[in-house]
Amino acid sequence: MGKSLVLCGTTSQYSYQLPGNSNNSFSSDEGGYKYDYATVPFLAEVLKLIISSLFLWRETKTSSSSSSSATAKITKDWKSVRLFVIPSIIYLIHNNVQFATLTFVDTSTYQIMGNLKIVTTALLFRLFLKRKLSNLQWMAIGLLAVGTTTSQIKGCGEASCDSLFTAPIQGYLLGILSAALSALAGVYTEFLMKRNNDSLYWQNLQLYTFGSLFNVARLIADDFRLGFEKGLWWQRIFDGYSITTWLVVLNLGSTGLLVSWLMKYADNIVKVYSTSMAMLLTMVASIYLFSFKPTVQLFLGIIICIMSLHMYFAPPQTLVDLPVTHEAHHKTLKQVIVEEKTDS
Amino acid sequence: MGKSLVLCGTTSQYSYQLPGNSNNSFSSDEGGYKYDYATVPFLAEVLKLIISSLFLWRETKTSSSSSSSATAKITKDWKSVRLFVIPSIIYLIHNNVQFATLTFVDTSTYQIMGNLKIVTTALLFRLFLKRKLSNLQWMAIGLLAVGTTTSQIKGCGEASCDSLFTAPIQGYLLGILSAALSALAGVYTEFLMKRNNDSLYWQNLQLYTFGSLFNVARLIADDFRLGFEKGLWWQRIFDGYSITTWLVVLNLGSTGLLVSWLMKYADNIVKVYSTSMAMLLTMVASIYLFSFKPTVQLFLGIIICIMSLHMYFAPPQTLVDLPVTHEAHHKTLKQVIVEEKTDS
Repeated sequence: MGKSLVLCGTTSQYSYQLPGNSNNSFSSDEGGYKYDYATVPFLAEVLKLIISSLFLWRETKTSSSSSSSATAKITKDWKSVRLFVIPSIIYLIHNNVQFATLTFVDTSTYQIMGNLKIVTTALLFRLFLKRKLSNLQWMAIGLLAVGTTTSQIKGCGEASCDSLFTAPIQGYLLGILSAALSALAGVYTEFLMKRNNDSLYWQNLQLYTFGSLFNVARLIADDFRLGFEKGLWWQRIFDGYSITTWLVVLNLGSTGLLVSWLMKYADNIVKVYSTSMAMLLTMVASIYLFSFKPTVQLFLGIIICIMSLHMYFAPPQTLVDLPVTHEAHHKTLKQVIVEEKTDS
Repeated sequence: MGKSLVLCGTTSQYSYQLPGNSNNSFSSDEGGYKYDYATVPFLAEVLKLIISSLFLWRETKTSSSSSSSATAKITKDWKSVRLFVIPSIIYLIHNNVQFATLTFVDTSTYQIMGNLKIVTTALLFRLFLKRKLSNLQWMAIGLLAVGTTTSQIKGCGEASCDSLFTAPIQGYLLGILSAALSALAGVYTEFLMKRNNDSLYWQNLQLYTFGSLFNVARLIADDFRLGFEKGLWWQRIFDGYSITTWLVVLNLGSTGLLVSWLMKYADNIVKVYSTSMAMLLTMVASIYLFSFKPTVQLFLGIIICIMSLHMYFAPPQTLVDLPVTHEAHHKTLKQVIVEEKTDS
């Protein structure tokens, strides 16, 4: 039940996160206005910071007034706080690797390779967080990656053909590195959120403070790169913003908070399933909203991903047990009785 | 081990069995010669009949000379023999349904719908042969159908686009009927081969006698339809035959014998896996032999089908068991001891 809610919630996240945006820093909005692309994640970070601060303030207020409930746990030790800068550093490196990858491969190939993130996340989840997966769960992870890739296969009506097997080797290596860094950021954040029972809002506050600082640094660096010909970043921060741009900021901020909640109370695997299902739902919605043509590959991709979801989360015994025959049922009962006897 | 051999053996079967052949009775051979398409399955049936007769003759000879070994069991009762006409009747109906389907859908859509046969085979396998499948095995069957379909998705370079979602409803219904009939023929043949322990060669002899007769009937019917303008069928039976045509006959005959062996000693599910893997291997071979472009969809289809194969045939415990911890191992041992105690 909780999982379905999460799946719905992250639905809108996908369409914004398409790769290739870092190629052009200025995007064309639907009204024809231009806005500085780098200001969007900055404002989203600030939004998340404000919301988390408010929640933390409310939490500390209620916990101090009522002595019976548990107080919001806050670790202010610098040794703990400094760990929260690491995700920002990983994202910084990831952005640059992403940029480098796109000089070797086209965006379509990059998008296909992006599905590797599902596999690298599971690998790092196993290696760093020491979570064990059954063979069936590993297969489910593989299928999820295959399913999302299937849904993205270029249809026969589309203009540009996939050049997936013709990219230079550097493109593939950087693609793998990019997938590994993205997974590392996720797994490290999960480690951060779960390593102690600090308040989620306090952990968010640290995470988004560093996030905001790194985004400001990027805006300043952009100013230097352009030789201040467009003025200072805070003078043009809302330039070209439409209602749609604000909705994108709001969306990015709220999904960010949701993912951080996932890292605290669920895990990275739930996250990859959420984002994959979100992508597929977005594609289905596009058929109705923008009259896109339904494709066989989307249909197949959805089936594969739903099967993967079931394989991963369903109780193993419901999957492999043959339908109970009378004899087998009888035997199980007998075993239960035997076990009860020996226990008493 | 035996299963892998079967997989290799049926590899060459696929390329010949593409649908749409029944549309034009005369095919253009590579040398430019024309031959009557309907003579190929007829000659294949006759070939299988001759080979089975020879094997049966050898079997009865050896069993009569050595009194110690088991004799070749032969049931000559008409009540038993007449059952062997049913597969031929089903194939006759199937051919006509196939023809009718192709008046509503194009060959590409027909090929995609052909993968439904995998699912219908499993359903009839369950219903008529009463074989139970676990939930995981049902999922594996679904994935096999999805995997073979994925490999057949039209690439972005191909001329004609899929019209999979635009065919008239009759097309889909006939496609489902076609898949059901094809599955029924397979499941019924398995029932025939396994219902008693008659010699495989005697069973084949009955099957291929009826098969040959039905094929002759088709050739005669074709003669009548064309008003004998091309003469009688036996006067032009080898017209336009090249070495390739003979190889096709040989191939069709040998795979037919192999499938009949499968029905006796394995089952229909092994058969659908064999033919699916055969199709994929043929597609991979085409890349090397005919310089076809490798596609993402073929790559993904192969991964899906291999996972499905593993899900279906691997011992369930190797799939769902978490890597054995000391405690779990200890518990299993304890249970074994308890069970042994109560048995003695």
